[in-house]
Amino acid sequence: MILPRRSLAAVALAGLPWQAGAQADPLPSWRDGARRRALLDFVAAVTTPGHADFVPPAERIAVFDNDGTLWVEQPAYTQLIFILARMRAMAPANPAWQQDAVLRAAIAGDLAGVLAGGTQNLLRLAGTAQAGMSPEAFQRIAAEWLATARDARWNRPYTALVYQPMLEVLALLRGQGFTNFIVSGGGVEFVRAFSEQAYQIPPHQVVGSSFALTPGEPHVDFVDDGPGKPVGIARFIGRRPIAAFGNSDGDWQMLRYATEGAGRRFGMIIHHDDAAREYAYDRQSHFGRLDRALDDAPGRGWQVVSMREDWGRIFPAD
Amino acid sequence: MILPRRSLAAVALAGLPWQAGAQADPLPSWRDGARRRALLDFVAAVTTPGHADFVPPAERIAVFDNDGTLWVEQPAYTQLIFILARMRAMAPANPAWQQDAVLRAAIAGDLAGVLAGGTQNLLRLAGTAQAGMSPEAFQRIAAEWLATARDARWNRPYTALVYQPMLEVLALLRGQGFTNFIVSGGGVEFVRAFSEQAYQIPPHQVVGSSFALTPGEPHVDFVDDGPGKPVGIARFIGRRPIAAFGNSDGDWQMLRYATEGAGRRFGMIIHHDDAAREYAYDRQSHFGRLDRALDDAPGRGWQVVSMREDWGRIFPAD
Repeated sequence: MILPRRSLAAVALAGLPWQAGAQADPLPSWRDGARRRALLDFVAAVTTPGHADFVPPAERIAVFDNDGTLWVEQPAYTQLIFILARMRAMAPANPAWQQDAVLRAAIAGDLAGVLAGGTQNLLRLAGTAQAGMSPEAFQRIAAEWLATARDARWNRPYTALVYQPMLEVLALLRGQGFTNFIVSGGGVEFVRAFSEQAYQIPPHQVVGSSFALTPGEPHVDFVDDGPGKPVGIARFIGRRPIAAFGNSDGDWQMLRYATEGAGRRFGMIIHHDDAAREYAYDRQSHFGRLDRALDDAPGRGWQVVSMREDWGRIFPAD
Repeated sequence: MILPRRSLAAVALAGLPWQAGAQADPLPSWRDGARRRALLDFVAAVTTPGHADFVPPAERIAVFDNDGTLWVEQPAYTQLIFILARMRAMAPANPAWQQDAVLRAAIAGDLAGVLAGGTQNLLRLAGTAQAGMSPEAFQRIAAEWLATARDARWNRPYTALVYQPMLEVLALLRGQGFTNFIVSGGGVEFVRAFSEQAYQIPPHQVVGSSFALTPGEPHVDFVDDGPGKPVGIARFIGRRPIAAFGNSDGDWQMLRYATEGAGRRFGMIIHHDDAAREYAYDRQSHFGRLDRALDDAPGRGWQVVSMREDWGRIFPAD
C-alpha cells in the first residue's frame, strides 16, 4: 500500500496525545529534529496519566529567561534602550546629570560609553530612571514607551520581536497544565509592563531584579541573574521547576536547579546562530554571553536549539 | 397569586448571575445580612460584562491575610506552636541552647516566657528553627508536622481549623475569574506547606515573611506585616488588588492599599466575637490585635464581619 505524503505524516504524529483527533501541530514554527522531538517527548511523558514520568499539574512549573530566550536582546537589552530614552527625556529637568560622565553618555544615547562603566553603572542608571516612582507608575511609563518605540533593524515595536517558536512552546505548555514563569535578570516592573500582552504571562508569574520599594536613593534589592535565579525561584515560586529555558551563562544556575531535581526534567538553551534572520553570537557577546552553559549542555542533557536549523520562522510577522 | 416560600427565595436570588439556572448558593455558611449581601453585590458588579464596575479577569486580584482570617490564630499563631515543637525536637542535638533564656523557654513549650522576649525573639526562634534548611526541606518538615499535630481545644489537625465561610469566599472568587493570594505576616515557606491542600492556593500565590536564602546565620529578609504588606503585594503580585480580607491592625495598610485604588473595591474585616464557637478578641489581643482597623472600618467602607452573627458554621467539620 502506498500512502500519500500527508497520511504518512499523520501516522508519524499519531503517538502524541495532542495529535489525537483533528488537533493541529502545536509547534508549527519548529522544524522536525532532535530538539523538537525531545520537547514533545518530555511534555507527553509528564502529562500522560499512568506514565512512569507523570507529574501532577500543580507541579508542572516551567521557567523561561526573557532576553534572548523569548525576545531579541541585541544590539542591547531592550530595557537598557528604554532607560537611555527615559534619561534623555528626564535630562532637561536634571541639569546636574551633565556633570557625571556615565549619566552624560546615557543622555547622549552613547551605548558604548555607558557599557564602559560596567554592571554597577547599568544598575545605577536603572535606579535613576525609576527613582521615586511607584511600581504602578513605572509599569505605565514602560508600557507607553513600548507602544511607540521601534527597533532600528526591523522598524517594529520591540514586543513584535518575540520568538514565534517560543510563543508556541508557552502555549503548548499552558495547554498541557503547566504554569509558565519568566525568570529574568531584567527589572521585574519592566518585564511586567508587557509580559501579559506579549506572552500571556500575568505580572505575578514574572520574577526579576528589583530595587527596594523604599523612599530615598534607589538601592538594589535583588539581582535575579546567575546564582540569583534559583534564589528568586525559591522565593517567588516556591517550587522547583521541571523545565527551564535559557540562552546564556546567566541561566546556567537556573538550568541546573531545574534539571537536577528528581524525576523527569527538561533543560533547553536557545543558541543564536542565525545572523541572516536574527543575530549570531555566543562566547564573546557582551549581552547574552553563552560559554560555560554551551560547554556543559551535552553532559547535563540540555537541548541546544540552533535557531538557524530548528526554527522555520523567527518572529510572528515573518 | 400566592407563591410558596421556596419560589419567593428563588425570585429574590434571581438577580445574581451565579444563581441563574440550577446553581447552588455559593455562600451556604453565611447568614443573610449586610456583609453577605455587600460581598455578593461586589462580585456581581465587577464580573458582569457591561456593568459600570466591570473588571477584566486579569485584574481580579483578591488578597487574604491567613492567621485569623482564613484559620484560627489562638491561643497562638500555629507557626509559633510549630516552631516550639521543632525546637524541642532539635534541642538534644543543641545543648548550648539551654544557656539562652528564650531558647530554653521555647524548648520547654513555655509560650508566655517566649512572648515576654518580644517580636525580635520570635523572629530569632523562627530563624533558628529554619537555619541551614532549603525551602523545599523546610516545607516538607512543616507539612509532616501539620499532618500529625493536633489543636488542644478541638483535638483536630490545624488544617481542619480553617473557616468554612472563607473557603466559600475563596471558591466563589476563583469561580468568578479572580486570582486569590495569601498575604501573610507568617513565614512564606510555612504557609506554602499547606496552602494548596487547605485553600487551593498554589505556593506562588503565597506572599509572606522570609529569611534570606543565604548561608550562615539566618537574617530576616522581609517582614510581610503592616506596612510590609503593600510592599509584598507590589513586589510579588505586581498589581493592586481590588479586594482585601483581613482581621487585624496588621492588615490595615493592605486594606487601605486595595480599597484606595480607582474603581469599585472591596475590603472586609473578620471580627472574632464568638467565644462559644471560636474565640472573642480584638483590641487587647496579643495575637491578631484589632483596634485601629476596627475604628477606621466604617469611614473607609470596610465590611466588619461578626463571626457570631454572620457565620452559620465556623469549621468544615461543624
